[in-house]
Amino acid sequence: MELKTNPHIKLNADDYLYHLDLETSKLDFKKEFNDVKFVCIGGSPTRMLKFAKFMSKQLTGNIEEPRNYAKGTDRYCLYKAGPVLIANHGIGTASLSVVLNELFKLLFYAQCSNVIFLRLGTCGGIGVEAGTVVITDKAVNGELEPIFSYMKLGKRINSPTYVDSDLANEIYNCCKDNFNVARGTTCSVDCFYEAQGRLDGALCDYFENDKQDFIKRLQDKGVINMEMEGLGLFSYCHRVGFKAAMIAVTIVNRLVEDVPTSEIDVIKEWEERPFKVALQFIRSKL
Amino acid sequence: MELKTNPHIKLNADDYLYHLDLETSKLDFKKEFNDVKFVCIGGSPTRMLKFAKFMSKQLTGNIEEPRNYAKGTDRYCLYKAGPVLIANHGIGTASLSVVLNELFKLLFYAQCSNVIFLRLGTCGGIGVEAGTVVITDKAVNGELEPIFSYMKLGKRINSPTYVDSDLANEIYNCCKDNFNVARGTTCSVDCFYEAQGRLDGALCDYFENDKQDFIKRLQDKGVINMEMEGLGLFSYCHRVGFKAAMIAVTIVNRLVEDVPTSEIDVIKEWEERPFKVALQFIRSKL
Repeated sequence: MELKTNPHIKLNADDYLYHLDLETSKLDFKKEFNDVKFVCIGGSPTRMLKFAKFMSKQLTGNIEEPRNYAKGTDRYCLYKAGPVLIANHGIGTASLSVVLNELFKLLFYAQCSNVIFLRLGTCGGIGVEAGTVVITDKAVNGELEPIFSYMKLGKRINSPTYVDSDLANEIYNCCKDNFNVARGTTCSVDCFYEAQGRLDGALCDYFENDKQDFIKRLQDKGVINMEMEGLGLFSYCHRVGFKAAMIAVTIVNRLVEDVPTSEIDVIKEWEERPFKVALQFIRSKL
Repeated sequence: MELKTNPHIKLNADDYLYHLDLETSKLDFKKEFNDVKFVCIGGSPTRMLKFAKFMSKQLTGNIEEPRNYAKGTDRYCLYKAGPVLIANHGIGTASLSVVLNELFKLLFYAQCSNVIFLRLGTCGGIGVEAGTVVITDKAVNGELEPIFSYMKLGKRINSPTYVDSDLANEIYNCCKDNFNVARGTTCSVDCFYEAQGRLDGALCDYFENDKQDFIKRLQDKGVINMEMEGLGLFSYCHRVGFKAAMIAVTIVNRLVEDVPTSEIDVIKEWEERPFKVALQFIRSKL
């Protein structure tokens, strides 16, 4: 049996997932991961460890320190809580693409099926109050087009992005009574400063009115949040055949400011909102 | 006084470098960092901690655990060894661009001048033996053009890359007798798998002969190594006015294989070669 999206990858081959430091010949992937039904990813390793502990306690009652399967490397972390696999993806699409490729192979070797990917993140809101949980309906790139662009063998490939609206609806409906939740378009870019129109990067040759014009164009396109990995998530998951959704909490309203000014404790509470939404959704599917 | 590349950034302003968790009002940047003459960056936080310890011992004789200035976050780490500032940048240009923007601001607030940036990394070699230290002469993107492309306010900007050949020569000359060192063109892409023509990603719709054709095209363009951050490094540093160089050791020869097969101890020794080259070069400048 071979992986549909790469005929070179065979089920019983010896493979080393370099950035996770996991080797098929040294770990029984099927035994460890075959029951996985959800993969939850987010940027920060510490936040994903916190999520792993939270999910372990909620789903299995286990309060022990979770095993980091990727402990042989500091590139990514990897935990498991019941049927949920949890990893961090770092900052930006390139970092995300490395761990996604290796997670997809892991799921293939573990012979998992119907796995749902959830990105749990933080983001800048556009015209929504800070602390709002945004469920992505549509993902656009920095030029506001629903296209993910990547390189293959020296050629640029433009691939349409696909957001599963049934899944987005399902997540929205299971949490809309508990949180301030919004659905809308996410603008996903590979830069925190210029591409997001911030005035506070080391490089900025534009002014407040240019930024306001840009934010206005985003709003006109239905964009309610900006972040750095959603577009890649939807594109890669769609290409390999997995459903994906993004649950990102806004920690700043970019109509008002560039940098979050809320108290750190408040932001920490906000960061846990996607955890709770993911738990509600996953519970509803078990 | 304002930052030349961003008139919104003023010397005595209160600024929070979000991803380094450093605030100008809470830390005296000038006192802590004014003597910085070199910034050394690399992907892995553990490797950069190792480098910080190595440089501290070599330059100052200090063998204490170095202070992580960015300990309030897990996004990046930040150390100092004498006149050398050391940080990790994660994987890919997006992750690199975040930390570079904040390091540039830090150096401005600290009133540093004539700072040289060195990226110390690992890479795939093209036709050079694994273990070779590559000093980049020229940087090209995934389409083999010397152009770094980034987004600003919804528009794509193509910016020429600039590699300082005097600096590259100087580094080469100070280490060519101690190591297997090569100078050449670096191809820098935002993907570890398809963009680098690997056959072992989860997504691959091409075959060995397509990969060989691609590698041949790389060789014809003078490319001797591939990695994921060089193009952004040269572009951002040039735009802000700092000299930059890249010292990357090859851990695999892509003409022969996709995945490093050398023993882990051998690879660990190779990973330290850029450390030693950086030390020789920095010593020669002090």
